[in-house]
Order: sequence, then structure tokens, then C-alpha cells
Amino acid sequence: MYFDKAETYSREEIERIQVVRLRNVVERAARSRFYAESLGGIDPADIRSVDDIRRLPLTTKNDLRASYPDGLLTVPHDQFVRLHVSSGTTGNPTAVYYTQNDLNSWADLMARCMHMIGIRPGDVFQNMSGYGLFTGGLGIHYGAERLGCLTIPSGAGNTARQIKLMKDFRTTAIHIIPSYALYFAEALTKSGIDPRRDLALRVALVGAEPHTEESRRKIEDALGIKAYNSYGLSEMNGPGVAFECLEQKGMHVWEDAYLIEILDPETLEPVKEGEIGEIVMTSLLREGMPIIRYRTRDLCRFLPGECPCGRKHRRIDRILGRADDMMILKGVNIYPMQIEQVLMAMPEVGQNYLIELDNDGHIDLMRVKVEIKEEFFIEDMRALNALRERIQTALRYEILLTPKVELVEANTLPKSEGKAKRVIDLRKQF
Amino acid sequence: MYFDKAETYSREEIERIQVVRLRNVVERAARSRFYAESLGGIDPADIRSVDDIRRLPLTTKNDLRASYPDGLLTVPHDQFVRLHVSSGTTGNPTAVYYTQNDLNSWADLMARCMHMIGIRPGDVFQNMSGYGLFTGGLGIHYGAERLGCLTIPSGAGNTARQIKLMKDFRTTAIHIIPSYALYFAEALTKSGIDPRRDLALRVALVGAEPHTEESRRKIEDALGIKAYNSYGLSEMNGPGVAFECLEQKGMHVWEDAYLIEILDPETLEPVKEGEIGEIVMTSLLREGMPIIRYRTRDLCRFLPGECPCGRKHRRIDRILGRADDMMILKGVNIYPMQIEQVLMAMPEVGQNYLIELDNDGHIDLMRVKVEIKEEFFIEDMRALNALRERIQTALRYEILLTPKVELVEANTLPKSEGKAKRVIDLRKQF
Repeated sequence: MYFDKAETYSREEIERIQVVRLRNVVERAARSRFYAESLGGIDPADIRSVDDIRRLPLTTKNDLRASYPDGLLTVPHDQFVRLHVSSGTTGNPTAVYYTQNDLNSWADLMARCMHMIGIRPGDVFQNMSGYGLFTGGLGIHYGAERLGCLTIPSGAGNTARQIKLMKDFRTTAIHIIPSYALYFAEALTKSGIDPRRDLALRVALVGAEPHTEESRRKIEDALGIKAYNSYGLSEMNGPGVAFECLEQKGMHVWEDAYLIEILDPETLEPVKEGEIGEIVMTSLLREGMPIIRYRTRDLCRFLPGECPCGRKHRRIDRILGRADDMMILKGVNIYPMQIEQVLMAMPEVGQNYLIELDNDGHIDLMRVKVEIKEEFFIEDMRALNALRERIQTALRYEILLTPKVELVEANTLPKSEGKAKRVIDLRKQF
Repeated sequence: MYFDKAETYSREEIERIQVVRLRNVVERAARSRFYAESLGGIDPADIRSVDDIRRLPLTTKNDLRASYPDGLLTVPHDQFVRLHVSSGTTGNPTAVYYTQNDLNSWADLMARCMHMIGIRPGDVFQNMSGYGLFTGGLGIHYGAERLGCLTIPSGAGNTARQIKLMKDFRTTAIHIIPSYALYFAEALTKSGIDPRRDLALRVALVGAEPHTEESRRKIEDALGIKAYNSYGLSEMNGPGVAFECLEQKGMHVWEDAYLIEILDPETLEPVKEGEIGEIVMTSLLREGMPIIRYRTRDLCRFLPGECPCGRKHRRIDRILGRADDMMILKGVNIYPMQIEQVLMAMPEVGQNYLIELDNDGHIDLMRVKVEIKEEFFIEDMRALNALRERIQTALRYEILLTPKVELVEANTLPKSEGKAKRVIDLRKQF
């Protein structure tokens, strides 16, 4: 039923092992140039509970860049067997080094994820993902082999060949990025293939790109499978940090291997239960390049309560955006994703919306311009006013402030190529 | 000095272990559908010497295709953890399955190759090769990790990034395909990088494409490194079948893992010492999908004598062509590569030549039309005749027949796009 013992740890066991491992991490990390300085002589013995992690300094992407390529290493160079490097579009890339033990524990964690969603030896696993420096490719590949699946390293692209492999070898499980999954489903239809009738597909790992619950359901419908969400980042090995169980209600963070905090990106204090904040992660098992309290910039929240699956590893929601997108209005943190979720849940709302921040005198205000679908944009002012008020109430409920809502006709807000610009800050600085 | 014990086996030890393993292979192979039939109840106990391999049937690419996808498997499906599939441009592709033990022994052999050319833990190994279904990518990747190098899975292409990785991480060893190596060296020059001054490169594994000794020297000069030739094929795992030692005088075949024969492609009898024939291979360690006496279609010859390095594993030459290119003339096997080598060694000969097979009455004859460089195509009939005779003599010495040689002016023979058509058979069948 379970892949390993750690999967069924109680909260007490998890926290006990976290304290022991955190102490080891602090001790080990101090051997690196970067942490020798930034830890400033903190004594590992001072770590007596999980909360003592707050005595340790945070680590940022800039810290990693500044110590590029090897300022975080704790063992001699000849003990490393793998290196992944981020693309580094701005400034220095970041480099992540792995010892053989790091590769082993990473593969174990990834195998645990796959086992959790019912993948077993005998399953045929097609890894439809790029390999090379992208940790999602080799990371999931090693996990699949560790688990004992028949692993087909089919790589990204070449759709016709992917389909042939899937038919010939009766592939049961795949790893695929969400945007390619929908394209792939269309290609199947065009080839006259009904996945439920002609294929043996049962389950998919989808990750690497943020995607909505709706996209997941579309992928599941189109391919006749169950799709499970994955979270990871190279600084914490890669995939295998958090993963959905069969319940599909949030991703369990493997807390025996990663210590997770969710902090207010401004105050750097823990957010209240269930509130949104920035994921901050500490790797508890990485021996060659431990990273302490890494600010991921990913926004998320813990899901409350226990998972019906019985596992005690806490669950996080889908990634809700990037910390860099956060707005502060009257001292309240607001994320565009919160507003988007409220708007998109309303059938009357169209494709586009715009958030304007302004100040009237010295008081901040938020204006939300919302496109309304043609069929709802009728000449009945009373109905429109009622809709406007419903939207306002729903937004206030979510963001705890009352924005000024304006309804506009479909296709009147400026469209942008690529990633839409949803927030305009018109506030004057005083 | 040596990676493992098998590397220094004496001939007696090699042959003793070959017999034991060959017996195991026969026993194991008989559990597959294909060999249950084709071995026809051969008793493993009948294998008493290496030469008894000749009692076993040959296996062809067509046999593999006909048993696609799983007719050669000897253990249940759930014991396999990897699958590689050839591209299969014509008809069914071929599928090669690996158990965890198969992956382990493959990685060991590949690590042995890299160790032989002086690569060690502490070396930074950049794997500049495609990953995915191509066995050269993951095969060499696993070998490098097994050996304990810092392995950078940089993948194919993206030259600017390859250069940045090479500089930032002081890469000492690379795997690169020969045609990309020369392109890459040019890119370095264009970026103002002198590999001897600015990089730490020391050694390259080059394989996957046949290339000449001259190309190797060019790669070595351009990158300031030593380049070592590699031989392998997916049916025998992938790379790691044969590899050059520091002497660079032919590739040692790892005979504890592969039993190699070189056979006349027509008679299927062993060729004489040093003669060219088709490589026929038996995998001695593969447990999940053993292949017996596989006709590779690759033409090669054993190199005579002992290697100065002291290893007793026999050496083969560079791959000299494909068996499908063989011509039979008056009962003699002739390979276009032999003629090309003779012609290209002569400074007067231009880019193009054409081999015509014809029969005059019932007697086969070969006509070789040779383009002569402009500066040598002078009006001095005596000089031209002397040249023609020199070519004829050199060819007779190589192929043991006297062809009719015709000298023609440069750019008069038909040019073909892509792979040149060098042989035209005008013989009438009787």
C-alpha cells in the first residue's frame, strides 16, 4: 500500500525527524562558503523544535546567483555526480549539484509520488518530457526506474511517434506538461484514436507549468485518465517535493525531506492558517548542497484539515502565482490570482479584466474593470447593477477590501500579446 | 589503474568466462518465444568452447522486427525498467528491453570505457548528446555517474550555452558526435575562445557516427584534446561495447560481456585473421533480452597482435562500412570502402569516382572511373598512363582483382545529393 515508512509517519514522527535532520542540515551547511558566513555561528544544538527554523536566515535566488557556481557546496568537488543549471535569463544562472546520495534520495521521493497514485512495477511509463538540464525529465525518469516501471524515455515532441509507442507498448502512465497534454489529445482524435478504446492509458503526472483545476479536468476527459499535479523546483532537487494523492485534494509535501513554511512576502512572518503566502523551503536530506529557508517566490496556502487518504504530510494548494505579483493596498496583501478566481467563477464574466490601483488624496483604492459577455450586457440597468454588486461582494469576501467595480463591454479592455498585463499601478508616491 | 578485474583478464580467463556465460545465455534465451523456437532444443551443456557458438543460429534485424515488441523477453514484463526503441524508418522498429541488472552492467561497462581513457571522479563531464530514445545519451550519462564524474546533462545543441557551461564549470571531458565537434570548434573560435588557453577540456568521447582518422585528428587539433572512438549498438545495450584505450590503436571489445565474431557476410564463415567481414555479436550479460549471434551489418576487422596497453580484450578497427554495400566479383568480396581508401590516398585524385560492375560474356569485370584534379589532367599522355597504372596496381594490391581504370576530368561524373551512389551494377543475370 505504501512505498516507504516515512509516508505514514504521524505528525509527531514527522516533526521529530524534522528537528533531527534540520540540526544536521545546519551543521552540514556551515561547511559551505555561503552558509559559513550567513549562518554566523548558529549552534545546531540550538535547534530544539521545528519552530527554531525561524532563527535561521532566509536564502534568496540572488544569494544562489551570487555564490554561483559553487559557493554552497559542503563536500569536495569529486563527490558530486550531477549538475543541473537553470536557464538564467537574467544575470548568472543558478547551479544545483548532487552527490550520489542526493540522486538516490531524490529518486526515492519521486518513486514515492508515483507509487502514491497507483503506479507499480509492470506499469509502462512513457516520459513525454524534455531531458537534459530540465530537472523534470531525468528526475521523473529516475523515479520511474526506481519504482520498477518499464520506463520509455520518449522525450518531448514527435507526436506521431509518441502515439505509436503508446499503442505498441500499451503505455499505462505518462508524464506530460499540461499545455502539451491538450494538444496531444487533439492529435489522437485527428488520428482516429479513442484513448478509452484503443489505448491502455490510466494515469498522468502533470507539472512544470501552473494549470487550473479546469485544465486538469479537460486533460482527464480528453485522455480518459486521472491526472495528478506535481510540485518541485531545482533548488529542492526538482520534481518530487509535493504531489497529489488519489484524493486529488491538494499536494502532500514530503515533510520528512523538505521543511516548508508559508510566509508573508513583506513581513516574512508565517501567514495565518489557510492564508496565502510565499513558499519557503529547506531541504532536509540534500547532503552536498543543502539550502536553508529558500524563498521560492511561489504563492500558495496550506489546505486545512486532514486528508482522507490518511497521510499526515501537510497539503498545499495549487501554486497561486508569484510573490512578485503581490499588491499591497491599505496594508493588505492582495494577489491578482485571488481576483481572477472570483471573477472566473461567475458565468457572466468574459475573458478579460483589469485591476487599477490609484490613490484619491492619500487613500489607496482599487478599481476592477470587468468585461461582461455580450449576452449579459443588456440594457437593463437594474440587472447590471445587481451583477456589479454581486461581484463587489464576492471580491470583498476574498480580499477583505471593497474595490470599485466597473462593468465594461466585451473586447473593450486592452489586449496584450503573451502574458496579459492585469495590474496597472497609477498611485502617486508621496 | 583499472576500473575492474575483468579489464585485465588473460586470454584464458576471457575465454573461460565466455564459455560459462555463453552456456547461461543459451539456457536463458530459450525462455523467450523467439529462441525457444530458433534454438531448437540445443543443450547448453553442448557449449564446451567458445567455438561452439557456431552451432547456434544467427539472429538478424528482421528476426528482431518480426518478434516486435516482446518476442525475445526471458522474464516477466514487470521485471523490466527501461525500453529503447529504434526509429524504424522501414517496417517495424526494434525494441530493446532492460532489467535493472542490465542497466547496472551496462553502466559498469560504460564507466570502464571512460576510466580507460583517464576520466576519474573529479572530472567534469559534459554530455553534449541527445537524450531520450537514443541509447548514446542515457547510456553514457549513466556510465559517467557510475564512474563518479560531475555529469552535466547539457543535451544536444544550444552552442552558446554549451560554451558557457564549459567555461563556468571547467569541463574536462565531453561526449560529442563527430560532425558537431567540428562545428562546435568553429563556434569557439568565432567567440574568441582558445580552448587551450580558456578551457579545461582534456578528452572527448566521439561515436555514434562513423568518422575517419583524419576527422579525429582535426577534432583533436581544433579543441586541444584527445578524442577516443566508441562502438556500440542498441541491440547490445548501446555504447560501451568497444572503446579505444589511450593508445588510440583500435577499439577493445569487452569480451567478458560480448562475444564477437567477424564473418564473411556471404558464406557466414569466420574470415581469416585481419580480413574484413561482418561483426556478429552475442550479449553475454543481458538477462532480460539476450541476443545471440546478432548480425550487425557493420563491416570491420580484428587488428592483429597485442595492444601495447596490455589489455587482452581483442581490438577492432574503425567501422569500415555496411555489409549491404559488399560486392561479389569473380567470387571475391569487395567493399567500396577499400577502393575509396586507395583512391583518396593519391594526391592526383579528385572528389568523385564511380565503380561499374559489368560482364563481358560470362566474365565479371570492374570498371573504376576516377576524376583527376585539374592541375594533374595535363596533355601528357605518358604521365596520365603512368598514373592510371599506379592506381590499377594499388587497387589490385587491395582487392586482389585487376579493375579497368579510366581517368576522367574533374566534375564530369554524375553528382548525387546526399549519400553518393558509388557503385552501379550493369551485369546481366543469367
